[in-house]
Amino acid sequence: MKLFRFKVLVWSIVCTSFLPVCELKAQQKTDAVIEKKVDALLKQMSLEEKVGQMAQVSIESLGNTKGNVFTFSDKMKDAVVNYKIGSILNTPGLQTAGDWNRIITEIHQAALQTRAKIPVLYGLDHIHGVNYVAGGTLFPQQIAQAATWNRQLVYNAGVITAYESRAAGVPWTFSPVLDLGTNPVWPRIWEGFGEDPYLTSELGVQFVKAVQEPLGNKEKLVVSLKHYMAYSDPKSGKDRTDAWIPEHYLREYHLPAFAAAIKANARNVMVNSALINGIPTHINKHILTGILKSELGFTGFIVTDWQDIENVYRRDKMTNNIKEAIALAINAGIDMSMIPYDYKAFCTDLIALVKEGKVSQARIDDAVRRILRVKYETGIFETPVTYVKDYPKFGSAEFEQAAYNTAAESITLLKNTNNVLPLRANAKVLVTGPNANSMRTLNGGWSYSWQGEKTDEYAAKYNTILEALQKKLGAGNIVYEQGVAYKMQGKYFEDSIVNIEAAVQAAANVDYVLLCIGENSYTETPGNTNDLSLSASQLALSSALIKTGKPVVVILNEGRPRIISSIEPGAAAIVDVFLPGNFGADALADVLTGVVNPSGKLPITYPRYTNDLAGYIHKPSEGSGNPQGGETAPQYPFGFGLSYTSFSYSKLTINKNNFDPAETATITVTVTNTGNKPGKEVVQLYITDLVASLTPDVKRLRGFEKVELQPGESKTVTFRISLKQLAFVGTDLKKHLEAGAFNIQAGTLQQVFTINKTLVF
Amino acid sequence: MKLFRFKVLVWSIVCTSFLPVCELKAQQKTDAVIEKKVDALLKQMSLEEKVGQMAQVSIESLGNTKGNVFTFSDKMKDAVVNYKIGSILNTPGLQTAGDWNRIITEIHQAALQTRAKIPVLYGLDHIHGVNYVAGGTLFPQQIAQAATWNRQLVYNAGVITAYESRAAGVPWTFSPVLDLGTNPVWPRIWEGFGEDPYLTSELGVQFVKAVQEPLGNKEKLVVSLKHYMAYSDPKSGKDRTDAWIPEHYLREYHLPAFAAAIKANARNVMVNSALINGIPTHINKHILTGILKSELGFTGFIVTDWQDIENVYRRDKMTNNIKEAIALAINAGIDMSMIPYDYKAFCTDLIALVKEGKVSQARIDDAVRRILRVKYETGIFETPVTYVKDYPKFGSAEFEQAAYNTAAESITLLKNTNNVLPLRANAKVLVTGPNANSMRTLNGGWSYSWQGEKTDEYAAKYNTILEALQKKLGAGNIVYEQGVAYKMQGKYFEDSIVNIEAAVQAAANVDYVLLCIGENSYTETPGNTNDLSLSASQLALSSALIKTGKPVVVILNEGRPRIISSIEPGAAAIVDVFLPGNFGADALADVLTGVVNPSGKLPITYPRYTNDLAGYIHKPSEGSGNPQGGETAPQYPFGFGLSYTSFSYSKLTINKNNFDPAETATITVTVTNTGNKPGKEVVQLYITDLVASLTPDVKRLRGFEKVELQPGESKTVTFRISLKQLAFVGTDLKKHLEAGAFNIQAGTLQQVFTINKTLVF
Repeated sequence: MKLFRFKVLVWSIVCTSFLPVCELKAQQKTDAVIEKKVDALLKQMSLEEKVGQMAQVSIESLGNTKGNVFTFSDKMKDAVVNYKIGSILNTPGLQTAGDWNRIITEIHQAALQTRAKIPVLYGLDHIHGVNYVAGGTLFPQQIAQAATWNRQLVYNAGVITAYESRAAGVPWTFSPVLDLGTNPVWPRIWEGFGEDPYLTSELGVQFVKAVQEPLGNKEKLVVSLKHYMAYSDPKSGKDRTDAWIPEHYLREYHLPAFAAAIKANARNVMVNSALINGIPTHINKHILTGILKSELGFTGFIVTDWQDIENVYRRDKMTNNIKEAIALAINAGIDMSMIPYDYKAFCTDLIALVKEGKVSQARIDDAVRRILRVKYETGIFETPVTYVKDYPKFGSAEFEQAAYNTAAESITLLKNTNNVLPLRANAKVLVTGPNANSMRTLNGGWSYSWQGEKTDEYAAKYNTILEALQKKLGAGNIVYEQGVAYKMQGKYFEDSIVNIEAAVQAAANVDYVLLCIGENSYTETPGNTNDLSLSASQLALSSALIKTGKPVVVILNEGRPRIISSIEPGAAAIVDVFLPGNFGADALADVLTGVVNPSGKLPITYPRYTNDLAGYIHKPSEGSGNPQGGETAPQYPFGFGLSYTSFSYSKLTINKNNFDPAETATITVTVTNTGNKPGKEVVQLYITDLVASLTPDVKRLRGFEKVELQPGESKTVTFRISLKQLAFVGTDLKKHLEAGAFNIQAGTLQQVFTINKTLVF
Repeated sequence: MKLFRFKVLVWSIVCTSFLPVCELKAQQKTDAVIEKKVDALLKQMSLEEKVGQMAQVSIESLGNTKGNVFTFSDKMKDAVVNYKIGSILNTPGLQTAGDWNRIITEIHQAALQTRAKIPVLYGLDHIHGVNYVAGGTLFPQQIAQAATWNRQLVYNAGVITAYESRAAGVPWTFSPVLDLGTNPVWPRIWEGFGEDPYLTSELGVQFVKAVQEPLGNKEKLVVSLKHYMAYSDPKSGKDRTDAWIPEHYLREYHLPAFAAAIKANARNVMVNSALINGIPTHINKHILTGILKSELGFTGFIVTDWQDIENVYRRDKMTNNIKEAIALAINAGIDMSMIPYDYKAFCTDLIALVKEGKVSQARIDDAVRRILRVKYETGIFETPVTYVKDYPKFGSAEFEQAAYNTAAESITLLKNTNNVLPLRANAKVLVTGPNANSMRTLNGGWSYSWQGEKTDEYAAKYNTILEALQKKLGAGNIVYEQGVAYKMQGKYFEDSIVNIEAAVQAAANVDYVLLCIGENSYTETPGNTNDLSLSASQLALSSALIKTGKPVVVILNEGRPRIISSIEPGAAAIVDVFLPGNFGADALADVLTGVVNPSGKLPITYPRYTNDLAGYIHKPSEGSGNPQGGETAPQYPFGFGLSYTSFSYSKLTINKNNFDPAETATITVTVTNTGNKPGKEVVQLYITDLVASLTPDVKRLRGFEKVELQPGESKTVTFRISLKQLAFVGTDLKKHLEAGAFNIQAGTLQQVFTINKTLVF
């Protein structure tokens, strides 16, 4: 074998791991000049003006859409001028950047009719690019961005999203999602960066820096970290339901990504819509004021999620009316309420609460100070509207290429028996399945509309998987049979058999079957599911095609990992594209044909069974002793992904064997491309605390770096790990780094080192 | 319609609901005479003698079994005489009562060779009757006992289990299980009394009183409450893994049944083998010493579960060796270690720990005092062995009748389309399915052996479902085709198709298909499952038989509720027999033929989907807003069960509309048999706190009473509810009974009352 027939280069990459350490009494920076302005403004403001700043209204209640044209009604002036509301959100149907410029200009003109002339802060859910601006660039959803394990690509997406948002005049995005994807049943797992606190922290920080820094720049906007915190792990698996999590686990798993992003200066936080331990997070003073504002020193403002103060009353049965719920929430630390409709009642109630002494004037001043601070920092006092004419790269080919690049690195090859992929040149391919010819499923929810149901109309100019393959392989080589179709309206999570027999017959005349399965678009409660299995119709189509004996290449296009264990053994290859966006099909076609060598790695555990959902972060007891159904093993583990080339690991070193807990360890490992194609590999560093006074996790990701290697090439990756990062949160809520042995793992290599004394901080 | 053609009688039943209230600093009673004896004995004892008392060894390591005869080796004397161990447990293969008399006599003879001559306390897992004594009476498992909702039947089972245990000479049973069946994936849900804290408390107290009171009586023995606490709700669903539960939920849901049983004087508690919030319960001083011993005033002793001190080291990676784990556990409050094998190391380590000052002499004295106290209370100092000759009713027809009676009331009719049941006289029936001809599946785990794999041999004289029906309907009317069979050795949780086609053909010539499906026997980790669905083989058999068009009567014989939603619509009738024991098939045959009118009610929620497992106790947010797959609705709700007659509810009254929180409310409701057969109905009283400062549960069971009614007869049931029972545990860990409105529900009737001020206690 000639593995090293190319010249061997040794490169060196040094990456320093910045695991967030929740330093007690940290403090985000503020600007003295801005603080003076805020103080001066605040002193002039009446209670009514202050309370107005704390109110956020949804635009569709302030006007009407005819055709595609949105027109404000008198209600907008009532809200902005009479009630002095501080913020508006949402989209009244898809708007162009120019439409948005006009809308925001009109709002500002109304604001100028007020005494204080404070600009209204407009916010939109720009979840994967500017998904609410027609003609903007849509990126892969966060789960797919995470599958790239490439900090730079996440950064690039943030820069472009910010640029295009400001082109539309929008200075605030409700993004990124930093919820950990620990519960695959939960319908929003695809909106985050996966199940690992470190991966989520690293990518979250990249996104925050890209979008927001330096805030005030006309290409930057305010981020909203969401949904603070532990929204993603409800006990029931259903959206917006109670999570059972003791505080030391909250701090160990769910807090770090938020803490890291706060440290990176994120200026807004949106609150978990659900409950933790029976307490709606919106009224949890310990979490909002105690941890976020006091401990982490957050100086930005906290906004509720949709109608969530009202939910404390209506859904959670904790007050006798909305007014009581407003008092609880504002006193807990909420600065702005996404009301979203009845701003009159909110303002009236909150004013009354202050006058009754149930909410203090100081709390109101603190909230308004935070909101005004961020408005000043954003620059909207000076530049209330930005215009698309000043943003020439809006929707440009350059940006589209960036979205393609992210999609290309996100595609994750999970199985490739006998190198069935890449496809042979001039191969004839049957393209089939409900996801084969759909822009809607490639984009998922939060695409042109909340549930993404209009994507096939709005993204018609981009390629579906079928279209991309027709272009790539020639239409004559492609046969298409849908087999199974989603319901496109109403219960759109349902699907039904169109014609499996036609698909089976078509398979007889092709070289490969490309079976495109997964889910339709959804988000939030409409995405709740009762069964993580792939649908019965899709399983039937899959089984029928596997029985043909033709090599079946399964394309998984889904927001969460639907169980495929009954068909997995029959698949020749499996490719997970997650929700890759408008250029996902082009990227997939390039992967299938070998133009792109896949380099995605799973940012989540892909479970094998519906009731075996533990993630890679688990306790020793959870990893053994399960004779029924065999040892617990996921379908594919966290961090897994194949390449068309192969990599080997060697020379795992650590600079010392025994450390003081305050030290930084330097760990190196060499990775070599031992195959015959250029490729990218994600070097993943896992560390295990072998003995601890709180049962330790079996392993934890503590560093990663994506490297590109030519055939035969080697690179040495250096990780600098501040050992404090290895501490666990004890039941005393302090961090404990205990003396004893730790195990390092990179690839198949392992090493042990020790820490010489215990540090509690 | 002549619903009232029988004479209407109005009876009156008064039942008072004793929901446990965790009175701080309660204290179990002790006997002054016994305390003196304990003190005197303790003063004479050496450290070695004391440590020996704290050691419990498993019998199979102390001898050999040849044929069915167990003989002690020299190791028994070494353990008892040299190491002075205080307790032995477990069975060396099935033994007769006489064998047990001999075994315990031999142990006592060894104990008499020691200086202190302290009798060895023998303990056995008598889980559903004396399942480790040949010829004894086996009752339905606890889940089935709970399905009777009949306190008296649970009491009767306890009396008989105690009597027959003492016939064997065994003075200690590791029973009852008070773990809440809140997670249907967990493999031991069938060992408890279901998912409700009140039902579990009520039945647990009955069992404790029946088995133990008055302790010292030669027909009574020591109970072991297990597995203290929250063992039953692991996050992963797998046995012996970490549960995530904040303390106020621990106290709200998991503690009450233990607290009630402690109040009823239970003298031993076994500890949860798993972890809560990352802490193995065996080293959780707050839970063992703080709550159990100090707060609840438990004066008995705490025993570990199997090898659980060692597990802190080996499984949970929390110490560097077993010795450190022993120190943690004993200091946390463990009094006796179920070692179960290496008693030398345990004794040596613990002695060393005391000498090194790592475990105090006071802690040792406390542990030994508790053990000696219970030994004195049990009467084994005066009567070290009891003999079967003195227990003439052992294995009697009277006891068998009692087991039958419990089975008959446990059988739960879940569906009965067009009154397909009872079966027509002289009907021809196809009996089919893997559970049709098995004593093993009727009994489940903990039957003659740990996993129940020998039951078909040892219980051959009792009737399987097939045999019972052959006897009841005449062999000529019964056709049998197995269809699907369990693997009986090795991976016995697996099943395979035997011959579905034969079953389908046989169905052509019968009036009914009796489809007996469910699970094979199992317990603990070997019972772990990755998918709650009924097995694929059984689903295939079921679907094939449903397609025949013959009325299919499904018999569910299972430890946990396997998902049947795909076949449920096709079933004409569904009967859940749970694990009904040796007389379960006879009882079922009587139900099927109408001799017995079914009166069982589900003590658990029967889920409809694998990933929709919330129980009836849930928060408002968990009960709505799940458009995908429709609103969340279980297959059958908690408390559900049909009858061959019908009942109506009327006149729900409460004695006042507005109460002081310290008062007791008197609630009455009248229930009438509106059908034409005598029957039993479980009147269930649910109360909802409509608004609370911690999101309230949608409803909670606060009272129940089973009443027997002739056709046309009415009875009025009176519930006296101390309103303090309606308090919830706040995050301050205090009980809060808040002013405001509460809703009462019985049958379809509802009423609202209010509490006039808030009480915190």
